[in-house]
Amino acid sequence: MFFASDNWAGAADEIAASLQRHSGGFSPAYGASDLDQQLEQRFNELFEREVAVFFVGTGTAANSLALSAVNRPGGFVLCHREAHLIEDECGAPEFFTSGARLAPIDGSFGKIDPNALRRGLQRFDPEFVHHGQPMAVSVTQATEVGTVYTNDEIAVIAEHTHAFGLPLHMDGARFANAMVRLESTPAEMTWKSGVDVLSFGATKNGCWCAEALVFFDPARAKQLPFIRKRAAQLFSKTRFIAAQFHAYLDDDLWIRLATHANAMADRLAAGIAAANNVSIGWPCESNELFVTMPKELAGRLKEQGARFYPWPVPEEFESKLTEGQGLYRLVTSFATTEEQVDQFLALIG
Amino acid sequence: MFFASDNWAGAADEIAASLQRHSGGFSPAYGASDLDQQLEQRFNELFEREVAVFFVGTGTAANSLALSAVNRPGGFVLCHREAHLIEDECGAPEFFTSGARLAPIDGSFGKIDPNALRRGLQRFDPEFVHHGQPMAVSVTQATEVGTVYTNDEIAVIAEHTHAFGLPLHMDGARFANAMVRLESTPAEMTWKSGVDVLSFGATKNGCWCAEALVFFDPARAKQLPFIRKRAAQLFSKTRFIAAQFHAYLDDDLWIRLATHANAMADRLAAGIAAANNVSIGWPCESNELFVTMPKELAGRLKEQGARFYPWPVPEEFESKLTEGQGLYRLVTSFATTEEQVDQFLALIG
Amino acid sequence: MFFASDNWAGAADEIAASLQRHSGGFSPAYGASDLDQQLEQRFNELFEREVAVFFVGTGTAANSLALSAVNRPGGFVLCHREAHLIEDECGAPEFFTSGARLAPIDGSFGKIDPNALRRGLQRFDPEFVHHGQPMAVSVTQATEVGTVYTNDEIAVIAEHTHAFGLPLHMDGARFANAMVRLESTPAEMTWKSGVDVLSFGATKNGCWCAEALVFFDPARAKQLPFIRKRAAQLFSKTRFIAAQFHAYLDDDLWIRLATHANAMADRLAAGIAAANNVSIGWPCESNELFVTMPKELAGRLKEQGARFYPWPVPEEFESKLTEGQGLYRLVTSFATTEEQVDQFLALIG
Amino acid sequence: MFFASDNWAGAADEIAASLQRHSGGFSPAYGASDLDQQLEQRFNELFEREVAVFFVGTGTAANSLALSAVNRPGGFVLCHREAHLIEDECGAPEFFTSGARLAPIDGSFGKIDPNALRRGLQRFDPEFVHHGQPMAVSVTQATEVGTVYTNDEIAVIAEHTHAFGLPLHMDGARFANAMVRLESTPAEMTWKSGVDVLSFGATKNGCWCAEALVFFDPARAKQLPFIRKRAAQLFSKTRFIAAQFHAYLDDDLWIRLATHANAMADRLAAGIAAANNVSIGWPCESNELFVTMPKELAGRLKEQGARFYPWPVPEEFESKLTEGQGLYRLVTSFATTEEQVDQFLALIG
Repeated sequence: MFFASDNWAGAADEIAASLQRHSGGFSPAYGASDLDQQLEQRFNELFEREVAVFFVGTGTAANSLALSAVNRPGGFVLCHREAHLIEDECGAPEFFTSGARLAPIDGSFGKIDPNALRRGLQRFDPEFVHHGQPMAVSVTQATEVGTVYTNDEIAVIAEHTHAFGLPLHMDGARFANAMVRLESTPAEMTWKSGVDVLSFGATKNGCWCAEALVFFDPARAKQLPFIRKRAAQLFSKTRFIAAQFHAYLDDDLWIRLATHANAMADRLAAGIAAANNVSIGWPCESNELFVTMPKELAGRLKEQGARFYPWPVPEEFESKLTEGQGLYRLVTSFATTEEQVDQFLALIG
Repeated sequence: MFFASDNWAGAADEIAASLQRHSGGFSPAYGASDLDQQLEQRFNELFEREVAVFFVGTGTAANSLALSAVNRPGGFVLCHREAHLIEDECGAPEFFTSGARLAPIDGSFGKIDPNALRRGLQRFDPEFVHHGQPMAVSVTQATEVGTVYTNDEIAVIAEHTHAFGLPLHMDGARFANAMVRLESTPAEMTWKSGVDVLSFGATKNGCWCAEALVFFDPARAKQLPFIRKRAAQLFSKTRFIAAQFHAYLDDDLWIRLATHANAMADRLAAGIAAANNVSIGWPCESNELFVTMPKELAGRLKEQGARFYPWPVPEEFESKLTEGQGLYRLVTSFATTEEQVDQFLALIG
Repeated sequence: MFFASDNWAGAADEIAASLQRHSGGFSPAYGASDLDQQLEQRFNELFEREVAVFFVGTGTAANSLALSAVNRPGGFVLCHREAHLIEDECGAPEFFTSGARLAPIDGSFGKIDPNALRRGLQRFDPEFVHHGQPMAVSVTQATEVGTVYTNDEIAVIAEHTHAFGLPLHMDGARFANAMVRLESTPAEMTWKSGVDVLSFGATKNGCWCAEALVFFDPARAKQLPFIRKRAAQLFSKTRFIAAQFHAYLDDDLWIRLATHANAMADRLAAGIAAANNVSIGWPCESNELFVTMPKELAGRLKEQGARFYPWPVPEEFESKLTEGQGLYRLVTSFATTEEQVDQFLALIG
Repeated sequence: MFFASDNWAGAADEIAASLQRHSGGFSPAYGASDLDQQLEQRFNELFEREVAVFFVGTGTAANSLALSAVNRPGGFVLCHREAHLIEDECGAPEFFTSGARLAPIDGSFGKIDPNALRRGLQRFDPEFVHHGQPMAVSVTQATEVGTVYTNDEIAVIAEHTHAFGLPLHMDGARFANAMVRLESTPAEMTWKSGVDVLSFGATKNGCWCAEALVFFDPARAKQLPFIRKRAAQLFSKTRFIAAQFHAYLDDDLWIRLATHANAMADRLAAGIAAANNVSIGWPCESNELFVTMPKELAGRLKEQGARFYPWPVPEEFESKLTEGQGLYRLVTSFATTEEQVDQFLALIG
């Protein structure tokens, strides 16, 4: 009963098989192999336009290099108060940008409130150096609390962002899970809605280690080859990332994996909805479910082998929690089985 | 006939098989899995003492984080003029240390000359801030030109380094190739000879992507967990690196792979020694061979399918080159076959 | 009627005279002159213990180098939500620390709430790298809103700070104004209350450009000579800062200047207390006064020659403001005259 | 007999007087005062075109911010092997650019050899990220060894620089001394010869602390206000720098001061030319003179009150030095008197 994180799973069979298949032979290093170049072309098709794509090793790297590419002295990136960028990357975005800052924006359900964003942007005055200057807006899709922005919601945020001449970045660590829920396309979810730069994550959805940084305007990425190498993110045997993406995108594997993960979350949510002493926090829109339950029950579940983490209680949630209750996160993945879900549901009975 | 680089090869069969074997099931992320911890223990045994070990994704990352851990304001790292750190990492060591500098030291055969090192260290005066201050010495084993320091040579460099209160770092991107040649042990080659921090590379010797940063004094590594995460080098599914190291160290695979690579380089060297118009630059001591030949011949070899790179001619070498000749690097790997070598030798006649 | 800022004034006569007096002759550069060394000794006496003192050019430099000296990878500095560090230094603290972050702590009257601080510190878990790690706490004395911490209040904050093994920094851009109000001594206000590092500002209180960074434990400052030079803050003719501090500290000039500035603020406050349509925000405890008044009145005052700035309305204040009213800052200095104050009071009638 | 450095002198009388004259009254801070703006206009006239000018506190700051403005990831700045940037700024240029590197270029007489520069530039391949990429060339005028580039020599270097699409920076810490020797104009020495960015130093030539960063294409300086503030180089009472420049440029004071300094160096050179056991290293073209003499004599001179520093012996010079001889630097300034020079000459007899 592993609901701790989608990165507790290993790799999908097809991913491991692809790595094995491409392990023989010789081919140019540092992104110059046929396979690398074939994959770059594949990303153009995926997004229905010419993009500049760069493979990196971690989601934190993808996000940090995205911000490096749009960096400004004294710069601020506006993002949701609970964004992974702010909470969980140990200052990597600030480090890679040599001190750019992350300005937290409020919003319910883990989503940036467009009005709060507009106020945040208006706060800066280009003639007043003391505050610094905005340099980008970043959204997370799906969000840190498992909700999903509609494409229209993204478009509104993009409009505010572009009105101030800034680029919009999307942290898509769980892009596939959001896409499956939205029944949308990669192009619709990104540049057609105003996204300029995407961290396209595949690790959480069945790869070992495969993240892609995608620029919808290749001109914006001109310095990226140097930025990536300087950041120690240019792998010598890039084939090993390309081979993962090859299998990931082939034959809709990524969609099948995310569909399964989401379905497992839904199954969990449905079971919990029927339970007495566990209730659901935010709407379950991807592969993450946040639930409140008595701390005592949580302790008991862990003793019985369930794995999941407590979650810091956001302000908007505090009033919903009664004495002795905690907020917990349950994450499903491509590897979650119906048996695991049902076993967990039986325990909370 | 692929002699361009040892990173043109993919992964050894045992490495790929190990990745497949560990791809199922669930286990804690970010280095907390049983496999990760088992491998940490394995490194203690390998080096015959308790070490602090950190897995990272690239050799550039290992080197840059090693220097981050010993960073000082206005700091200088002394290393050989042709070191990978200086020549081939696009400023990553400088970037990760926020501007520490690399001071080039002279020396023949790609090795630091101990007297030049001592003079370089004496140049700094702790009372004179304008020059900055030394913070570490770094050696490459095997060197960039395929030679290998004896353990005694390392010990002399370590003595100078420690006399100034500095740590000695070893860039071991081709550590296995050097070890096989020296018929030594990991402990003898490192801390027993005075090395304090090691970048232990496995990628070039048959892994996909597996580098370990090893501190022989764990106290020196206290900040490394934060340094690594901030550097976007903490992988979520660290299992995928651990699984590679598991196979790599198991049953002496790494020694067998390096032995083969070196043997292929020796076979190449022996054949070339007998050739008329190709001659060997530095002694062939690992899996790299540097040769001079007419540029016209090099061009012809490429047309016939041989892959190898020209190499910048160092000063000590210029007089050896006659008109129309070039310097070239030939690299063998675990994947090089006798057939490839013999085919190449046949072509140079 | 110049109430825009205390840095709209120039230099006190004694400061200018001292610069003239020391402009002749020759003496060693970069802090080695007799005058520099005499001043270092003077700081020991001022603080009643041996301190390490470093002259720099701006308050932002003093703060940024203080934090550089205690920097940690993934580090956080906890300070008040409205601190100058966060609001007005264009990311300099983040830049000079290569990406350390500033964690905003709540508190009324511009002062850190000790309970909020404790909760903020507890939030970090040394075993959980994702959040980063705390590295210091910083207080501003006098605060950004013109209030003053009592020494006991500082001692409580210091206790929490030290309980987590962290150093306490004090941004003393208006240290003299606070000291005069507290009727305390430099030693009592700082290390005797638990402060470890002080930015001792003199520019706002009558100097041209004179800031001192003071470490109460000189061992903590060992790297500062290199940190300062690398930060381009080691002036060649350091005499010009020493000469200012010489006059500043001589014969209690600094106390007289701050006493005057505070008296002018009190005079302003007393007059405003009697006025109908202007009221005082926070208690006037140094040389800054925050007042609410109709925006229309503020506009009229400006037309009549008064100079002062609007101030962003903090949350705790929003309910106090009625429609059409604004919050404004009035700052006095050594150069403010009774005539200026009375003229302003006459206008608000 | 103070020949240690031109920064051992204090400030010229006119500079001190100007500071006193402008110390009263109130005016906007952070560069917005009438005096600041008047001086910006004065720089336009000085350089015969519209420039963007930024006052900073140290020469190291001017150089470091100039390079920050033209920074690139993995960037290299090519400059003379003995440039102040490389030798004497404790890594500040590398720090402020977050790790850009300084590539040393050879050349006699302290000047960049244009052919070595061209080779240095050709070395980089925009398609090969491993080496990094060039981002600027920097020359020092007058050079570190007291020689002066002719405007034609600068023009040749500019041509090579611009051929690679790079900007040319001039470190003009002793700009006035060079100009007096060249009998040229600020415009001829800079943009008319191809210089794009200038560090215009005034501190060494009679100011306390006054350095200006000048961009001949203001578009290139758009981010400078944020770069300067983030670098802690935006002084609050900028008037104090403007007041120095006001006196410095007024009535040709700066030319008179430099003319005097150079004349004193010439007088010293003429006397030394007639001496038996002291000889001149490089041609004396500004206010610095490099001489060889027996170390024993140097020791004796110091005992008799002369102040001057030994200088590291460059390779091109080693053969000229006989056993027991040393290389020394003698620097004159606006404050050097004929009596000091003659007293020194009498001692070397």
